[in-house]
Parts: sequence; structure tokens; C-alpha cells
Amino acid sequence: MIKKIEKVALFGGTHGNEMTGIYLVKKFLKNPHLLKRSTLEVFPFLSNPKAIELGVRYTEIDLNRCFAPEDLENLDHSLYEQLLAKIIHQKLLNNQINFLVDLHSTTANMGLTIILSDTDQFHLQLCSYLSGINPEIKVLYYASKEKNKLLRSNTELGLSIEIGSIAQGILDADLFMKTENLIYCLLDYLEKYNQNKLEKQTNNLVFYEVLERVDYPRQGEEITAMIHPNLQFKDYQPMNLGDPLFLTFEGETITYQGDSPVYPVFINEAAYYEKGIAMCLAKKREIIVQFH
Amino acid sequence: MIKKIEKVALFGGTHGNEMTGIYLVKKFLKNPHLLKRSTLEVFPFLSNPKAIELGVRYTEIDLNRCFAPEDLENLDHSLYEQLLAKIIHQKLLNNQINFLVDLHSTTANMGLTIILSDTDQFHLQLCSYLSGINPEIKVLYYASKEKNKLLRSNTELGLSIEIGSIAQGILDADLFMKTENLIYCLLDYLEKYNQNKLEKQTNNLVFYEVLERVDYPRQGEEITAMIHPNLQFKDYQPMNLGDPLFLTFEGETITYQGDSPVYPVFINEAAYYEKGIAMCLAKKREIIVQFH
Repeated sequence: MIKKIEKVALFGGTHGNEMTGIYLVKKFLKNPHLLKRSTLEVFPFLSNPKAIELGVRYTEIDLNRCFAPEDLENLDHSLYEQLLAKIIHQKLLNNQINFLVDLHSTTANMGLTIILSDTDQFHLQLCSYLSGINPEIKVLYYASKEKNKLLRSNTELGLSIEIGSIAQGILDADLFMKTENLIYCLLDYLEKYNQNKLEKQTNNLVFYEVLERVDYPRQGEEITAMIHPNLQFKDYQPMNLGDPLFLTFEGETITYQGDSPVYPVFINEAAYYEKGIAMCLAKKREIIVQFH
Repeated sequence: MIKKIEKVALFGGTHGNEMTGIYLVKKFLKNPHLLKRSTLEVFPFLSNPKAIELGVRYTEIDLNRCFAPEDLENLDHSLYEQLLAKIIHQKLLNNQINFLVDLHSTTANMGLTIILSDTDQFHLQLCSYLSGINPEIKVLYYASKEKNKLLRSNTELGLSIEIGSIAQGILDADLFMKTENLIYCLLDYLEKYNQNKLEKQTNNLVFYEVLERVDYPRQGEEITAMIHPNLQFKDYQPMNLGDPLFLTFEGETITYQGDSPVYPVFINEAAYYEKGIAMCLAKKREIIVQFH
């Protein structure tokens, strides 16, 4: 049983060109009453001020890969984001934050996605509550090798929110409002949790578990194909053996060869070209979540 | 009467994060036979190599604002794009280019748009031919104050192609193929023009003329509102007095107050936040184009 959640940190602008989180945090900094709940204190933060000012994902290195314990301890690192990571980590300790929300957006058509690093009872209950209120919400369990490098990894409890499709550098009012509403529902849940007011119930929860990353076909570093038009914007839809995956620049279709069905996510995320990821492949899971 | 068009330059990557043009030019550099026509020579160019490598619009200053004659003549300018502009200008002169195509993409939902800086008989005939083949094509006449700063302004004849909506930094296979096809139709037209093989005919041509730019509501430099969700992705659709224009972060709708109807374009273009442009307002025009 987890103790009360009294201090929540809400981060926007971990990537400086993902505007939804940035402008939500700015709104909350200006209107702190919107985050007020009787049992918890919420701290909104702009994660990467310099990247936000420049309108870029990061200035020197991806901030959201700078939080591994060995990197936080290493005092020889001196890139801007490496320094920033240490300060953010310290702020979280100083404020005794025990729940962290990190707001992101993606050019993939992932709608309103909650990303979990853990599938323990606490987080699954939370997601089952939130997706019960808004069935549009998708839950993605993504335990990558890089898991401990993420901003999210600074606290035991928390989640990332990923919304899309939205281009880098713009605001989409509809997705802005949906994300804002999700944040309020999340805080309401934490309040009920603290007050022991959650109803006893048994829910089904569907979630997706990332198993694999797929890179673009390449010749050397250069990509030789694009996401196939039949697959573009089809995140969370089942893909089967033989389905179109890529289209080469010469017009040839490359099909999917692997276990079926899989559920591609992060299809054509702009920031992942440099990371060698054309999409991630997930399995669909369904579990029963009990509230005691 | 314009003499034959024998040398055509095709530019991609004038903005280094607009991938469609970049990968089309790379394709043509690898497969030059695709651009071969009997009466004309086509030169594909990657405009801004450093910005392309970094995946950014520009490194120091927008290349597509560096071509004003007084700037080309000024030898004291030393920003990367200012130097590059002089070299590009010289290349065009050396190759005796007399028709220029500049490939762009936008986060606005502008489909397949041809942008004209002039509405003389030659360019209108060309557009009427192209939109006759593909009715999806929109023609936008945009004679801004900055017209002579554009890469396009280096030659008397030519056009820009603007496709969207597409996020910066990604390829969309469907829009890639549409743009490629438009380039082939354009070259076919120039070939027929040179061979005097265009049929005598009279066509109606609808085009849109940009009259005005609208900025976001701001407090100081900071925007205070987003494109209204009802307007997002509605480029080229009529907007009337009282229609929703912006939504403030506090949820208030700001409506359009002005001449009706107007046709907004470049709605929510990522690169225009810094330029103070939320959208451009155009009038719809219809004219008769005669081929003699």
C-alpha cells in the first residue's frame, strides 16, 4: 500500500518544441488555483527553458535521456541538458515530490496516450479509473532499456502523457483541451486516493506493451523508404503478416514480416528519425484491475 | 511572348526541416533520367545543406528571406544563409536558369498549393493547365512585401510548391507522391510549351490572392490564444463575419471581424509563430485564361 500522494510535479517543455505541455504549464503558473486540491500540492515546471526559448527539442542532448543515476552522479558532464537534469533532480528532492507527470506530444497519431514505466497495482488502478472516465485514453506500457534515463524515472510514481498527432512547434486547441482535462481527472483521482474515497470495483483494462522498435530501411545512415501511406496515422491498429510497412522512394512496398497481430505506435514520430525508430510494435493486453 | 524555357532549377531544402522537397531532390539527384525532357535541362539542388543536416528551418537566418538585390550586393553580410544566398544566385546565373521551382511544406492543411508571385499570362496558363489535370491543386497568388527576398525571385519565371498539412521533420508518402507527380506534370507542360504543342483553349481558373496577415493575440511577445478548433485545418474554406478565429488559453472564443467571405490559408504554420502570422487571409478570384 502506497502512502498518501502529497506533492505532485507537472512538467511541460521537457522537449522545447512540444508546445502543448509548455502552454499548459504556463497557464497553470498563471492560474495556480486550477491545480488546487485539498490533500495535495501541485508544482508546475517548465523543464528546458533554453530549448523552449529556441523552439527546439533540445539544445545539446535530449534532456529526457539525462536522468540515469550514474549520469546524475557524474560531475564531469557539462552539456546544458546534463546540468539541467541535475538541477531538476535536486528540485524534485527538495520539494519531496512523490508523483510526477511529464507532458509530451508526438507527430504520430497516438491520440491521448498515458505512458507507464511500471504495471504495478497503483498505476493500473489509476489508468483504469482514467480510461473509465474517458474511453479515448490509450495506455501504453513502455519499459525500454532507456527507462531509467527518463525525467519520469526521478520518482517512484507517475506517468508521461503523449498526445498526437501534432506537429512540433504548434498548438492544437482540441488536443490542448483534452490534455488539460486529463490532468484535472488525474488530480481528482489522486485526491480521492488520498481521501480513501475510491469505490471498490473490478474493471477490465486494455493496455499496449511495447516489445520492439523498427527502424527505417537505410543505406548507410540515409533512409531509403517512408512509412507506407496505408500505415500512416494508423497507430494502435492491428498489423498482420504481409501488411504494408514502408514504401521505398522508388515506389516499392515493403511488408511486415513477423508475429501477428502487433499494434504499431509512434509511427512516423519526427524526433525518432535520428534515433533510428520508424515505429514501435506493441502487443495488446487485457487485465482485470481490482480496487480493494 | 516568352522565349523557350531551356534551363529549370528545382530546389528542395530551402528550409532544412521540410523533408518532402529534400527527399524528392535526393531522388532526382540519384535518378536524373526522371527529369529528362527533350527540350529542357533540369537541375535539382539542395538549397541549405547545413540546415538539412541539422534538421532545422535555418541555422542563422531564414534563407528564403536573403535574396533581395541589395542584400545580394552587400558583401559585409556574413551569416551562413546570407553567404549561401549569394552562391545560389551565382549558380543560377552561371547555369542560365530561366525557370525556378522551390519545394516547401507546411503544417497548415493547404493540400497541394502552387504559389505564384505574378499573375501574368504565362504563369496563369501554366496553372490552368496543371489544375486542369489535377483539380486538387490550389493556386495562391502571394505578392508580399518580402516577395523580392525569396529564392523564387531569382528568376523571372517559376513558382513555389507548398504541401500540407505535414509536420516538420517527417515524410508523408502520400504527399510525397503527389508532389512528385506535380513536378512531372509541370515539366511536361514546359516541354509542350517549348514545342508549341499546347492546344488552343479557354479555361476558367480559380485562384486565391493573399491580402492580409493576421497575428495571434499577444500580451507583449507571448501569445494568449490558439487557432480556434473550428478553424484548425480549414485552409481555403470561406470564413465570415462572426466565425470563430481564436480560442484563448482561458477558453474564450475570439471571432472574425472583417470583410466576408475571406479564405484563410497558412493556418497554424509552425514556422510563422516567430514571424507573427497566425494565418493569411485571401480573396477568391476566378478568371478566364486563354491559350492562343
